[in-house]
Amino acid sequence: MARDTTRRRKRERSSAKLKQLPRRIITNLYSPIAVLSDDQIESIHEASLEVLENLGMKVLSDQALDLLAAAGADVDRATSQVRFDRGLITEWVAKAPSEFTLHARNPANNVPIGGNRIAITPISSTPNCSDLDRGRRPGTYDDFCNFLRLAQDLNIIHFLGGYPVEPQDLPVPTRHLDAYYAFATLTDMAWRTYALSVQRCIDGINMACIALGKTREELAREPAIMTMINTNSPLLLDGPMADGMIEMARAGQAVSITPFTLSGAMAPATLAGALAQQNAEALAAIAVVQIAAPGAPTVYGGFTSNVDMKTGAPAFGTPECTKAALAGGQLARFHGLPYRSSNVNTSNAVDAQAAYESEMSIWAAMMGHANVIHQGAGWLEGGLTASFEKMIIDAEMLQMVAETLMPIEVNNDTLGLDAMAEAGPGGHFFGTAHTLERYETAFYEPMVSDWRNFESWEEAGALDATQRANGIWKQMLKDYEQPAIDPAIDEELKAFVARRKEEEKAAV
Amino acid sequence: MARDTTRRRKRERSSAKLKQLPRRIITNLYSPIAVLSDDQIESIHEASLEVLENLGMKVLSDQALDLLAAAGADVDRATSQVRFDRGLITEWVAKAPSEFTLHARNPANNVPIGGNRIAITPISSTPNCSDLDRGRRPGTYDDFCNFLRLAQDLNIIHFLGGYPVEPQDLPVPTRHLDAYYAFATLTDMAWRTYALSVQRCIDGINMACIALGKTREELAREPAIMTMINTNSPLLLDGPMADGMIEMARAGQAVSITPFTLSGAMAPATLAGALAQQNAEALAAIAVVQIAAPGAPTVYGGFTSNVDMKTGAPAFGTPECTKAALAGGQLARFHGLPYRSSNVNTSNAVDAQAAYESEMSIWAAMMGHANVIHQGAGWLEGGLTASFEKMIIDAEMLQMVAETLMPIEVNNDTLGLDAMAEAGPGGHFFGTAHTLERYETAFYEPMVSDWRNFESWEEAGALDATQRANGIWKQMLKDYEQPAIDPAIDEELKAFVARRKEEEKAAV
Repeated sequence: MARDTTRRRKRERSSAKLKQLPRRIITNLYSPIAVLSDDQIESIHEASLEVLENLGMKVLSDQALDLLAAAGADVDRATSQVRFDRGLITEWVAKAPSEFTLHARNPANNVPIGGNRIAITPISSTPNCSDLDRGRRPGTYDDFCNFLRLAQDLNIIHFLGGYPVEPQDLPVPTRHLDAYYAFATLTDMAWRTYALSVQRCIDGINMACIALGKTREELAREPAIMTMINTNSPLLLDGPMADGMIEMARAGQAVSITPFTLSGAMAPATLAGALAQQNAEALAAIAVVQIAAPGAPTVYGGFTSNVDMKTGAPAFGTPECTKAALAGGQLARFHGLPYRSSNVNTSNAVDAQAAYESEMSIWAAMMGHANVIHQGAGWLEGGLTASFEKMIIDAEMLQMVAETLMPIEVNNDTLGLDAMAEAGPGGHFFGTAHTLERYETAFYEPMVSDWRNFESWEEAGALDATQRANGIWKQMLKDYEQPAIDPAIDEELKAFVARRKEEEKAAV
Repeated sequence: MARDTTRRRKRERSSAKLKQLPRRIITNLYSPIAVLSDDQIESIHEASLEVLENLGMKVLSDQALDLLAAAGADVDRATSQVRFDRGLITEWVAKAPSEFTLHARNPANNVPIGGNRIAITPISSTPNCSDLDRGRRPGTYDDFCNFLRLAQDLNIIHFLGGYPVEPQDLPVPTRHLDAYYAFATLTDMAWRTYALSVQRCIDGINMACIALGKTREELAREPAIMTMINTNSPLLLDGPMADGMIEMARAGQAVSITPFTLSGAMAPATLAGALAQQNAEALAAIAVVQIAAPGAPTVYGGFTSNVDMKTGAPAFGTPECTKAALAGGQLARFHGLPYRSSNVNTSNAVDAQAAYESEMSIWAAMMGHANVIHQGAGWLEGGLTASFEKMIIDAEMLQMVAETLMPIEVNNDTLGLDAMAEAGPGGHFFGTAHTLERYETAFYEPMVSDWRNFESWEEAGALDATQRANGIWKQMLKDYEQPAIDPAIDEELKAFVARRKEEEKAAV
C-alpha cells in the first residue's frame, strides 16, 4: 500500500513539470461517425464469409492447422489452405469477449479495452529514429529507452505497443529480454510481446508474472500483455505469428489481429474489397485464437490504407485510409469485438503534412470509437522512423481531440446569464465573477501550440511547432524519474534476463 | 451560349495544370457529429431567448431601431437598448429561408447554400500577407489580386468571402471599387460586399448587376453577393453594419451574421454560455434582417472560440472552438437556417500547429455540416495574415476531408472477390484486371503531400510541405488565365468604377 502511494506520487511529480491533461481513460460519448449503412456492413461481412468459404486462407502453422481441422474447418495439408464454413466462423468469433482489462504493474494504469473507451500506445517497431539535433539514424537501445521515458510521462499514452524503435545495437536473439526489462522498469504501464517466435512470448509472459508479482494462473485471469499480430495479406497467416498468438491466447493474454490490407497492393483497389478482405483475414485469425483458447481477449484490427498508384508506395492518413478506419470500427462493433486503429502518416519530415495526415487518422480513430489507437505518437515516414518531435506533437493532437470528446456541460451555472448581465452590452468578461471562478480550468492549455502574437513570437526566436517540440522532449527527459519498483522484483527480473541470456548463448 | 462555353473551357484549362479534385459542391451524406443532446439545444435556445427578453441587445442604428419598434420590440431610444419578446423573435427568424443559391457570373459556379451542402470561401479581411520568399508584410492590391487568381483556380473554393488581404496601398474611400472590379473580372465566382457603409453595399449591388448582366429586380430574385456581418459581442449591433445588412437584405442579397463570441473575453468562459450568447445575438440580428426584408437569404454564423486565460490572447482551432463549431451547426439546424463556420488557427508559421489547428476547424465544419466554411484557405495568425503557402495546404486539407465525405461504394464489382481469387494467398493486386480497370481513379491524388520514401525525398531536396506549397502557388500564378468576360461588361464595370471614383473625389 505504502509502495503504491510512493509510486503514484512519483508519477504525478514527474508529469507535473509538463502542463498536460490528467491521466485518464478516454471515453467517447458521441455517436461514432458511420460511413457504412447497416446494409453495407452486412454486404461486406457476407463477402468476407464467401471469401473464407471459397478461397480460404493459407495458414503456415502445423499447430494452427491441427486446431482448425479438429474444429471442423476444411484443411488441405498439401497447400496449407483452409476453407471455413460460415456458420463455424461466426460461432468461433462469438467466443471472444467484447471487453477486457489490460493490467499494469501500477494498477492506476490498468487499461479497459472495449466499449466506448479509447486507449493509446506510442509508436512501435520502426527501424529508425530521428530528432532535429541528430537527424535520422538506425535505432539504438538508448533511443529505445528515451522513447519509453517519454511514453511513461505523457499522460495521453495508456500502454506500450511495442519497441518504439528497434534497438539495433543489441543482439537479435536476446534483444527482447532487454526490451521487456526496460518496459517493466522504465515504465509502470502494460506492454506488448512480439509473436515473432513462441519463445519471445513465453519470456514475455514470465517477465510479466515477475513484474506484476503474479502466478501464470493469476496472469491468465488478469491479462497484462498484448501481442500485435498481422496477417500477410492477401489471405496468408504466417507460422511464427500463428504459433505466438496461440501461445499468448492459451496464457490468457491479449491478441490484437490486424490484416495489412493495403488497397491496390495487398488488397483490391476498392475500399469495399479491401474491407471485405480485411474482415475475412481478421475473422480467420480470430477463429484460430478462439479455437485455441475460447474466450481469450482478442482485438479486431483495421489498417486498410492505399498505395500511390503511380509508384506503388504505401500512403497513410489519406481519405481512403480515413474512411477505412471509420468503417473498420463499424465492422468490429458488428462482431462485438474491441477495435484497433492507428495514428499514421507518410511524411518524411515533422511538418504540416505529418500533422494533417495524422489528424485524419486521429479523427477517424477517435470518432470511429477505436478502442486501441496503436502507433499513437511518434510515427513518421509510413512507420519507418520514430520521431522524438513527432511524439510530442502527436501527444498534443491526441489531447486536443480527446478534449473535444468531453461533452459540453449545460446547466444554469454554465449558461452564465448572470455573467452576461454583469458584463453588459459591449462589456468584457475577464473580470466577471463567472470568469474568475473558472480562471484556471476553463479551457484546454496546449503543450506545443504557441498563441502569442506574431511580434512576441518573433522576438522569442520564431520557433515553429517542431522546434518547440524539440525543447519539450528534451526537458521531459531531464525531468523523468523512473517509477518506483520493489527492489526484489527488479532483482528477479534482472536474474531472469541473465539466466535466459546464458541459455540463448549456450544454444548457439 | 458561345460565350459560356469558352469561359468554361478556359476554366478547365487553367485548372488542369494542377492535379486537384474536380470542381463540385460538397455534399455530406453522413450524419453530423452531435455534441449537444436535443435537451441541451433546447436549454441553450431558451437561455438565449431569456437574454433577449431581459438583457436585450444594444442596436446602434436609428433605422434598425425604427424597424424593431414598428415590429413590436421594446425599444429604449435613450440607451439604444432593445428587448425582444420570445414569441416575436421566433416568428421573425422563421421567415428566413432554409436554403438559397448564390449566383455567379459563370453559372457553373452558382453555389447552393443550405441543407447538407458545403461551400468554401478563401481567407478574407486580413491586414497582412506572407509567403516564404518575401515574409510577412502589409497587404497590397497586387497581393490581393494574386490571392484572387489562386482562389479562381483552386476547385475547392466556391465563392469569395471578402478581400483575401486588405489592399492597403489603395485609398480607403474607393478601395472597395477596385476590389469589387477585381472580384468580378479576375474570377467568375460569386463574391462578398463589405457592410462597413451603406454606400459600399450599394456599389457592390450595382457592380454585381453589371457583371451578371441583370437588373436590380433580377438580382433580387437571384442573389449574387453576400455580406458578412458580425455583432460586437457582447450584445451590441454596430450602426454601419446594421444599415449595410438592411440595404443588402432589401436588395434581396444574402446576409451572413456571426457573433464574435470569444469565450472568456466577449462571452462567458463556458461553452454553454458562449453558445447561448452567440445564439441570442445571431437571432436578434437575423430578426432585424427579416423585419426589413422578410424572406431575405440569411446565414447563421458561429465563431465561438476561447482566449488564452493567461494572456487574454484569442485562440483558434482549440478543442473548445471545435466543439462550439459542431454545436453551432446543431443550433442553426434547430432554427432551420444555413450555417457558417470557419477554418481557423493561431499559428504564426505554416507549420504543424497551423495544420493541426486548421484540421480541428475543418473536421468540425465538415462533420458539423457547415454550409459555408468561411476563411477556408490561407488563414494564419488568428486571422491577421493571409499566407500564400497556407492557402495551398488548406486546399489540400479541405480536399482530403471533402473526399472522405464521398461514401464508400459497396456492390459486387467493388467487393472484388474475383480480384482476390486472381491475386491468391500471398499474391499481389497490382496486375489484376480489377486494379488495372481503376488504375487512374482509384484513390485521392494529393497536391502537396509527398509519399516518396525518405531517400528519394532527400535526394529531391528534402522540401517540407510548406516549401512544396510555395512552389505550387507560384506555378499556379504562372498558369493562371483570366476567365473570359464580355468586353462590353468589362467596359461598363470600368466606367462605373471611374465614375464613382470621381464622385468620391468630389465629395472630399
